[in-house]
Amino acid sequence: MSKAPPPAATYATPALQNSHVANLLTGTTAYTKQITITSNSDLERERNRCTFNASTLTHMLDGGATSTLRRRELESMIENDPSGIFDNSQNANMSRPERHVRALAKTVRMIELARSIGMGNDHDGHIIADDFFGVLLASVADDLPAALHWVMFVPNIMSLCDDEQQKNWLPLCRDWKMIGCYAQTELGHGSNVRGLETTATFRPGGSAGDGEWVIHSPTLTSGKFWPGTLGRTANHAMVIARLIDGSGVDRGMQNFLVPLRDMRTHQPLQGVTVADIGPKIGYNNMDNGLAYFDHVVIPRRNMAMRFATVDERGNFTKRKVSDAASKVAYVTMMQVRALIVNEAGKALAMAVTVCTRYSAVRRQGFKEKGSKTEVQILDYVQQQHRIFPLLAASYCFFFTGRQIIQRLRSIERILVQQKAGTANSVTKEMVADIHASSSCLKSFTTTIAADGIEECRKACGGHGFLVSSGLPELLGAYLQNPTVEGDNHMLPQQTVRVLLKMLQTLNSGGDVSAYKKCDSWYLVKEIQNIISSPDTNMCSAETLDDLLKGSTILQAFRHRAARLLLELAGNIAEKTSNGSSSETQQQNVWNQSLVQIARVSKAHSLALLMNHFLEGIEAESSNLGNAEIRVLNDLALLFGLYHIEQAMGDFLEDQYLTSSQSTLVRDSVLLLLKRVRINAVGLVDARDFTDFRLKSALGRKDGNVYPAIINESLMTGGLNDQHVGPGYAEHLRKLTVDGVGEYHPAAANTQLQHSRL
Amino acid sequence: MSKAPPPAATYATPALQNSHVANLLTGTTAYTKQITITSNSDLERERNRCTFNASTLTHMLDGGATSTLRRRELESMIENDPSGIFDNSQNANMSRPERHVRALAKTVRMIELARSIGMGNDHDGHIIADDFFGVLLASVADDLPAALHWVMFVPNIMSLCDDEQQKNWLPLCRDWKMIGCYAQTELGHGSNVRGLETTATFRPGGSAGDGEWVIHSPTLTSGKFWPGTLGRTANHAMVIARLIDGSGVDRGMQNFLVPLRDMRTHQPLQGVTVADIGPKIGYNNMDNGLAYFDHVVIPRRNMAMRFATVDERGNFTKRKVSDAASKVAYVTMMQVRALIVNEAGKALAMAVTVCTRYSAVRRQGFKEKGSKTEVQILDYVQQQHRIFPLLAASYCFFFTGRQIIQRLRSIERILVQQKAGTANSVTKEMVADIHASSSCLKSFTTTIAADGIEECRKACGGHGFLVSSGLPELLGAYLQNPTVEGDNHMLPQQTVRVLLKMLQTLNSGGDVSAYKKCDSWYLVKEIQNIISSPDTNMCSAETLDDLLKGSTILQAFRHRAARLLLELAGNIAEKTSNGSSSETQQQNVWNQSLVQIARVSKAHSLALLMNHFLEGIEAESSNLGNAEIRVLNDLALLFGLYHIEQAMGDFLEDQYLTSSQSTLVRDSVLLLLKRVRINAVGLVDARDFTDFRLKSALGRKDGNVYPAIINESLMTGGLNDQHVGPGYAEHLRKLTVDGVGEYHPAAANTQLQHSRL
Repeated sequence: MSKAPPPAATYATPALQNSHVANLLTGTTAYTKQITITSNSDLERERNRCTFNASTLTHMLDGGATSTLRRRELESMIENDPSGIFDNSQNANMSRPERHVRALAKTVRMIELARSIGMGNDHDGHIIADDFFGVLLASVADDLPAALHWVMFVPNIMSLCDDEQQKNWLPLCRDWKMIGCYAQTELGHGSNVRGLETTATFRPGGSAGDGEWVIHSPTLTSGKFWPGTLGRTANHAMVIARLIDGSGVDRGMQNFLVPLRDMRTHQPLQGVTVADIGPKIGYNNMDNGLAYFDHVVIPRRNMAMRFATVDERGNFTKRKVSDAASKVAYVTMMQVRALIVNEAGKALAMAVTVCTRYSAVRRQGFKEKGSKTEVQILDYVQQQHRIFPLLAASYCFFFTGRQIIQRLRSIERILVQQKAGTANSVTKEMVADIHASSSCLKSFTTTIAADGIEECRKACGGHGFLVSSGLPELLGAYLQNPTVEGDNHMLPQQTVRVLLKMLQTLNSGGDVSAYKKCDSWYLVKEIQNIISSPDTNMCSAETLDDLLKGSTILQAFRHRAARLLLELAGNIAEKTSNGSSSETQQQNVWNQSLVQIARVSKAHSLALLMNHFLEGIEAESSNLGNAEIRVLNDLALLFGLYHIEQAMGDFLEDQYLTSSQSTLVRDSVLLLLKRVRINAVGLVDARDFTDFRLKSALGRKDGNVYPAIINESLMTGGLNDQHVGPGYAEHLRKLTVDGVGEYHPAAANTQLQHSRL
Repeated sequence: MSKAPPPAATYATPALQNSHVANLLTGTTAYTKQITITSNSDLERERNRCTFNASTLTHMLDGGATSTLRRRELESMIENDPSGIFDNSQNANMSRPERHVRALAKTVRMIELARSIGMGNDHDGHIIADDFFGVLLASVADDLPAALHWVMFVPNIMSLCDDEQQKNWLPLCRDWKMIGCYAQTELGHGSNVRGLETTATFRPGGSAGDGEWVIHSPTLTSGKFWPGTLGRTANHAMVIARLIDGSGVDRGMQNFLVPLRDMRTHQPLQGVTVADIGPKIGYNNMDNGLAYFDHVVIPRRNMAMRFATVDERGNFTKRKVSDAASKVAYVTMMQVRALIVNEAGKALAMAVTVCTRYSAVRRQGFKEKGSKTEVQILDYVQQQHRIFPLLAASYCFFFTGRQIIQRLRSIERILVQQKAGTANSVTKEMVADIHASSSCLKSFTTTIAADGIEECRKACGGHGFLVSSGLPELLGAYLQNPTVEGDNHMLPQQTVRVLLKMLQTLNSGGDVSAYKKCDSWYLVKEIQNIISSPDTNMCSAETLDDLLKGSTILQAFRHRAARLLLELAGNIAEKTSNGSSSETQQQNVWNQSLVQIARVSKAHSLALLMNHFLEGIEAESSNLGNAEIRVLNDLALLFGLYHIEQAMGDFLEDQYLTSSQSTLVRDSVLLLLKRVRINAVGLVDARDFTDFRLKSALGRKDGNVYPAIINESLMTGGLNDQHVGPGYAEHLRKLTVDGVGEYHPAAANTQLQHSRL
């Protein structure tokens, strides 16, 4: 109400020389005032009637009130930086090279700001000084080409390089002399690391006399392709290549630090071809790159040597490191997946914020004949059914992401102690289990988020199609996530392999107690249940109240996962026993089971997610009031029941649910949509995304949607600069005025002169 | 095999000065030859082992061998046009204004070419001379800003204007003096036409002395927003506005032809503000526009006066036109939806073509330890499960689109005769029924197509993320379809209203014979079945063979639709009878039923689609050989069984299917994937999309995927022009060499100076 619409007078677009539109925009007519007020009052009413305190949830999401404050300070530092470089308002009008260049400028300024507040460095070269570095990065609300230097390259050095190597390289990373990328995938090779073709061949002698590597791309398909930061920004790459030792023996994949560009001139080094791979569906600030190596020579000690070494004579040795130490490296790398789960929740929450706020402001359809005001589209149950389960998912992924990160860190901590020989051991089952969980959860959550962002975009109707809605760019940049770090359609196999192994132990009467501290422990218990009393496994809910319990829903998911896993194992066993069990035949059976494997993985994911959601709320209960607990609980129930509704067949086909229970499920979803409706705006407000961060005319906090859209439209570079658009005089006029090739009846039915070559 | 990779030597990019990559690309090394041969031989083997004749299906899809020839001639004319203007290879490197300008140039040249072969004109002003005009338009493989002039503006004049108006305006349209757009939606108003705010107020006198209209945009939200061609290209708009007659009475929405720009100078006319609305997620050649009117005066006779008139004194009269005549106008407009269904099939087929070919060329994963060659990803059942149901859907939508177009034309024909009083009548039930069918089918098919294109993109892994894969642009441009011409989440209501009315007639013992010629007749019979013998409605299939019958599947879909419709009607009746039945309460009940309504609409769609698929194959049987019939039949079965699998709960919850039948369904899907596998490449080849049309490095007919990707990457404008990318010297160097703000331990832990405002 008190917020004025953006000043129109500052725009030079000819359309605004027209005083009518300028008046409508600046609010000097009664009409605009009415609109401005209507929009704001809708959101205000929504906020006023919320049953809970949004800022309590904000603090929970940030990890405490202090963290909220710190985040806001960092966001403000970026948004209000006097350099103005972080302004994103012209992004849509920039060419790709312009955006890339600006993103480089932002990178430099961000590092400068970070250093000015003592962030981003550590005496031992650790780049990520604290969790707030990620917050700072996110505050920029734009993709920075060098971000992967921290996110992937430096952690890689810390995991795979030995102490001396770390001591040499990490300070260079910290000081930005070395900017690195992680170069694994090749033009012809993605998920199957064993298929990579780049070679690193040992050769004795060299400038230091202790041997060297020849890095080579033997084929077109062997070119490194896709690594972010590789194309234009990085001067080094950690290259995964096939190691050929001094005896010419192929020792499989190892990591090699390859200098790409001169550290002072940035010119590509001898034998190195690097280029940007071209425009993508999103993430276009980034210089995802390609690289070919033509017998590039690097020192022997540029091989990452923590877990394997090659000596001066080219002898390859796997290092005897403690079991714990190698697990630490593995667990560290898994944290990337946990972060992806967390990010899935955030990205989805951004889309849901835009869509929910817009749906509260947008009105369409009359309640009855003769009504003057139209209905808020957020009041349509269909719209709620599209958005609210995604809102619930965004909160769910927060709890799950946090849970996995905590678990990985705790395992890491124990392992570090274990390395020193002092603490409880981390079993291989625990490591396999967290691998299984993080695999299926990465797959499931990023699929839901990618589809969900697009669903939110579509749920904004036509205006969601506009770049100014913020959703196309959010979507485009997000869409890499279902593919990177394990394609979502490959990962379920990793999960299910682990689960099947556990089942095998159980079936063969082995000791399953090692799984007690594992996520999959519930499967052991469920399977025992199903086997011991096959007829009693059904849902006992008789009323809506029975269904509206977290435990009921969790039990349904757990039962489903166990039942599907048993069926899968049965199928595989049956098919394998039918034929002989050669490796090829086993692969065929596995291949024939992939659809079922995906079902099992999804079922396991939902059992985990539901559990994390409920446990997460429980764990926060002392920090929350009853109102907040109630609203989070509604979200958890909605999340669960919606996903039962979506996969109803899975619960009906073994009679776990009856037909009348399936009707109850559908009714309960409708009931929960109603409950969530009243708090929807509050729940997205609680995410505390700034307008600067959302970059959305539709998702503005003040609800001034329409003036914002028109402003963005009229600012469109190139097409609106003149009253008559580009191309008229040169082209269109030929048709309208000059009458090029005007219609002559005599020309009718002339035969075509061309034919396909 | 015989195809050479694209010539690398013509590219000036510095990366190609490096002879290693140039060698790999031009095939002078053994490695490249191997790759080129491998790729091609994969596709060749796929083609050789096809069980059917692809060109037979091509002819079917084109509507006969002569049409195939004609289409190919037109495509060749565009592709080989000596002007070179139709070249799309630089699209990704152009700015939006550049693409718009080039698209205008293409428009002019295309009209010129069309005129040169006597196409695109008719003596009576009909613009679309024959169906091949659409083929010519599609051949350009790029969106043309003026296309909507034919597709929407001219048909609108022909439907809604009286004879004299048509005689005046259509020749101007044909001769491109008048370029028009259809301006309905407003910034604040989409699907709810009754909510539009633009006014057309009658005023007596005027220059001709017989009255005039004042067109006005009273509020910010009343600005016309979204119409294609409006922003920069059109000089006229058919504006939908609220008619205020001479007595000041609001007569609701009517169409008004409003001149926007001077027909010679293209300058906006007095009081008219027009602009492009800005960048969108796709379709960016197009100048979707906005327009505000500030008391713009137009002649009285610029109101479209076929169905209503206003005389010199401002008296509004609805014209007494025959019932048939008004139905004709309605049926004509419905053809747009039928075209959308057909286009859904085509767009999806393009994505499936790219994904299928690439999946045959792409190899990943070893069959067994020690294998040298990797597996074609098309051999993974999971990949087949993603792609083949979409391949089947693309064929299904072809048959459905054709069936609806034929039906609409036949209704139109009868109506025209009926107008003359000579033929069988078209009942209002028939018109309502085809409206119901086209509504739910538009919604369902465009949802499947939009999601399916994206699924194909994801199924290409990382490379599907590249603009050079062709899929991002195909997707972006397609994504308008779920929203335009009735949002996909609104349309189900229109369908279900019609079905409920039919049910009401049936329930009240009325005469339902009027539905005999309707799509929904099956519902009458099914409902009678369910009511008369509620216990015998279950699927009788016991074996895979029983399930693998079109009739079995069709029956399942029909039963489900009838069952869900009955349940919905029961729910609505129950809830309405509980409360009183005020309009508001009825609306509430309807709102609470929207999720169920969407289910009914989807169920009805699938019953129709399956029927059209089976009938379509049947109708073509005399033109096809047994092999072609067999392969189409496999697709129909796969389409049906896949959609049963996806919505298994719907079939289990009333015990129409048993648990063991649900297992059979899943097994049958796997069996069909296997059967389709062998013909997959042939089935996409049959679509006969040229490389020019697909614009995809991954979907190339010759399978030379990898050289094509690298070529496209290295051609990337702006970022790859120099060895050192833009922005290094200006920005990045500050960090790497100058050490801006370098790390100083003393700065650590400095407090932030900023706080949020």
